Amino acid sequence: MPNQKIFIFDTTLRDGEQVPGCKLNTKEKIELALQLEELGVDIIEAGFPISSPGDFHSVEEISKIIKNASVCGLSRAVQKDIETAAQALKYAKRPRIHTGIGTSDLHIKAKFNSTREEIIERAVQAVKWAKNFVDDVEFYAEDAGRTDNEYLARVIEAVIKAGATVVNIPDTTGYCLPHQYGEKIAFLINNVKNIDRAVISCHCHNDLGLATANSISGIIGGARQIECTINGLGERAGNTSLEEVVMVIKQHAHLGFYTDIKTQKLNPVSRQVAETMRMMVQPNKAIVGSNAFSHSSGIHQDGFLKDSLTYEIINPEEVGADGSKIVLTARSGRSALAHRLHKIGYSFNRNDIDVIYEHFLQVADTKKEVMEDDLHKLAKAYQASIVTA
Amino acid sequence: MPNQKIFIFDTTLRDGEQVPGCKLNTKEKIELALQLEELGVDIIEAGFPISSPGDFHSVEEISKIIKNASVCGLSRAVQKDIETAAQALKYAKRPRIHTGIGTSDLHIKAKFNSTREEIIERAVQAVKWAKNFVDDVEFYAEDAGRTDNEYLARVIEAVIKAGATVVNIPDTTGYCLPHQYGEKIAFLINNVKNIDRAVISCHCHNDLGLATANSISGIIGGARQIECTINGLGERAGNTSLEEVVMVIKQHAHLGFYTDIKTQKLNPVSRQVAETMRMMVQPNKAIVGSNAFSHSSGIHQDGFLKDSLTYEIINPEEVGADGSKIVLTARSGRSALAHRLHKIGYSFNRNDIDVIYEHFLQVADTKKEVMEDDLHKLAKAYQASIVTA
Repeated sequence: MPNQKIFIFDTTLRDGEQVPGCKLNTKEKIELALQLEELGVDIIEAGFPISSPGDFHSVEEISKIIKNASVCGLSRAVQKDIETAAQALKYAKRPRIHTGIGTSDLHIKAKFNSTREEIIERAVQAVKWAKNFVDDVEFYAEDAGRTDNEYLARVIEAVIKAGATVVNIPDTTGYCLPHQYGEKIAFLINNVKNIDRAVISCHCHNDLGLATANSISGIIGGARQIECTINGLGERAGNTSLEEVVMVIKQHAHLGFYTDIKTQKLNPVSRQVAETMRMMVQPNKAIVGSNAFSHSSGIHQDGFLKDSLTYEIINPEEVGADGSKIVLTARSGRSALAHRLHKIGYSFNRNDIDVIYEHFLQVADTKKEVMEDDLHKLAKAYQASIVTA
Repeated sequence: MPNQKIFIFDTTLRDGEQVPGCKLNTKEKIELALQLEELGVDIIEAGFPISSPGDFHSVEEISKIIKNASVCGLSRAVQKDIETAAQALKYAKRPRIHTGIGTSDLHIKAKFNSTREEIIERAVQAVKWAKNFVDDVEFYAEDAGRTDNEYLARVIEAVIKAGATVVNIPDTTGYCLPHQYGEKIAFLINNVKNIDRAVISCHCHNDLGLATANSISGIIGGARQIECTINGLGERAGNTSLEEVVMVIKQHAHLGFYTDIKTQKLNPVSRQVAETMRMMVQPNKAIVGSNAFSHSSGIHQDGFLKDSLTYEIINPEEVGADGSKIVLTARSGRSALAHRLHKIGYSFNRNDIDVIYEHFLQVADTKKEVMEDDLHKLAKAYQASIVTA
């Protein structure tokens, strides 16, 4: 069987942008949308048009400028929301309306004071209404992660019958374990009669640090779209990180999936999003953190220098990172020291390095990182000591 | 069956501290070690004594001061390393020596230019040597994630026979998928004859964003110790986050596990580690990020205010966070606006809020976050407009 394509649905400009402090103006949103298209995402969720006039305008302008990706607008299962989304998307080459409603008993009761049957009816009406404006309608079953599977299957069957082309199964609160989420998707594949007429989508949150694993478990279970954001931005602990799921799929080719993401652009786009949204990425962030390809312990550095594959599964260039860095600290060994000295022009033999290493450790114990200047001093002091000896 | 205890092995002061820029002096290491003991970790990996005189000293001083937790020192499978670790640990109430060697074919060939048989011999000798000094000896099979399972089982059986009390199965490069890592642990449980004489430990790295999921998959597979760090610090993309695995275990009680971590201390300890090591935590970090419990979109805020459980699975107080915050942006709805106005002393009815909300959106579209000052202005302007109308 040929590899199956996984559609990448980027929601940096919607679920990411609604984060405290991340709001963008229209110009900034357009710039990022163009970068996302360059990166190769299949669908750009551009905003939530009913939420404010500013956001409506952003979705409209992004619709005008994006050529290849689908442009998607969010709405609740409310007629006015859907109409406003349709209006904002009217210039899009491939418009998609994303509409939906909470399906867990908690949401049905606490948010809507409604019943399971009434929610199905509202879901169907919303999809039908959206179909008046666009062909491509995605339905989200909010809090699907905590929704009873039998009932969820009924909701999904009904919305597909009403015309939904994509069905989104969000783990809204980041509650699921990977095997639970994967089993939920597999249950829908096996129990929704018309499921082959729609694409199942994973939308996971990272409250317990499991969003990436849950999304991968979802596609193994049968989903073919992943909703994600650059740098894992999003409500609370954020959404699934685009860069992580894309690289899991690429590294684990045996799973039989691929995406159309140009991975060399992952780090440049990550930096642009971080700067534009002023949401910094921690150094120890997978794929896009500043330390993601740094080696500092002696054991690791020694192995890495013998064969980079001993400690590195991804070539930094493959994801547009600056290349592996060997940082010198008090935990570094002789081989790392020799490597760095060699890089700045000194060729010492093993016995030389042994002596310099003792001095190096004294310096290293007093500071966070031994820099190039320190290395020159150490090397020159050693050369002077030989001459005078 | 009663719940099974999962031992928490914290390596913030070893695998975390070897990160570029994270090096600490002895005083700082002691302060953090005391915090970790307060937090309730079972084992503190305090350092790698052979690596530098400064680190030797830190391990020695931590050994003197820690009362309840085991104190562990790292070593390679080298006699001098092990002796130095033993010496640094001599004042510890519960000393543990952590020793080991690479077991994947890549490590055996590229790092050691050795053979599978020779590596088993070196592993056994290392454990036997460590047993001369302490009872509690943990063996790590470096790069176990990429080690052939049949061979790994032979290594583990041999080191347990030699006296290892804990066997650590590191996914050194962060390569495994959760089901692969869980199956590896289950394979050892089923194929190593004397496995019941040792505790199996998970040591996962986060290069693909899967460390938390892999560790949980490992304990489901039969492991009973997790090696982790505060804030997920560590080489490259870091280690498993202590706060994430602990909260997964707590939230998913149906798995049948528990830890002795005092979860209310998770956020305070996270802050102290971030400040001491100067390694910031990104806002969208699970459990300990500054936004982990913030709600900003209108849909979420509305639901949250009706019943916090609709969007929150963890009570922020349970992990020592400041409490859920309702941040006002252009994505916020009327209920969030009303809530915040109410909190600062204004009681408006629904029609009032509708009018104020229009003005609120105009302000919100021009800035990242609407602050308390803005709210006072909006409220007072509205009150003035009623009086004059």
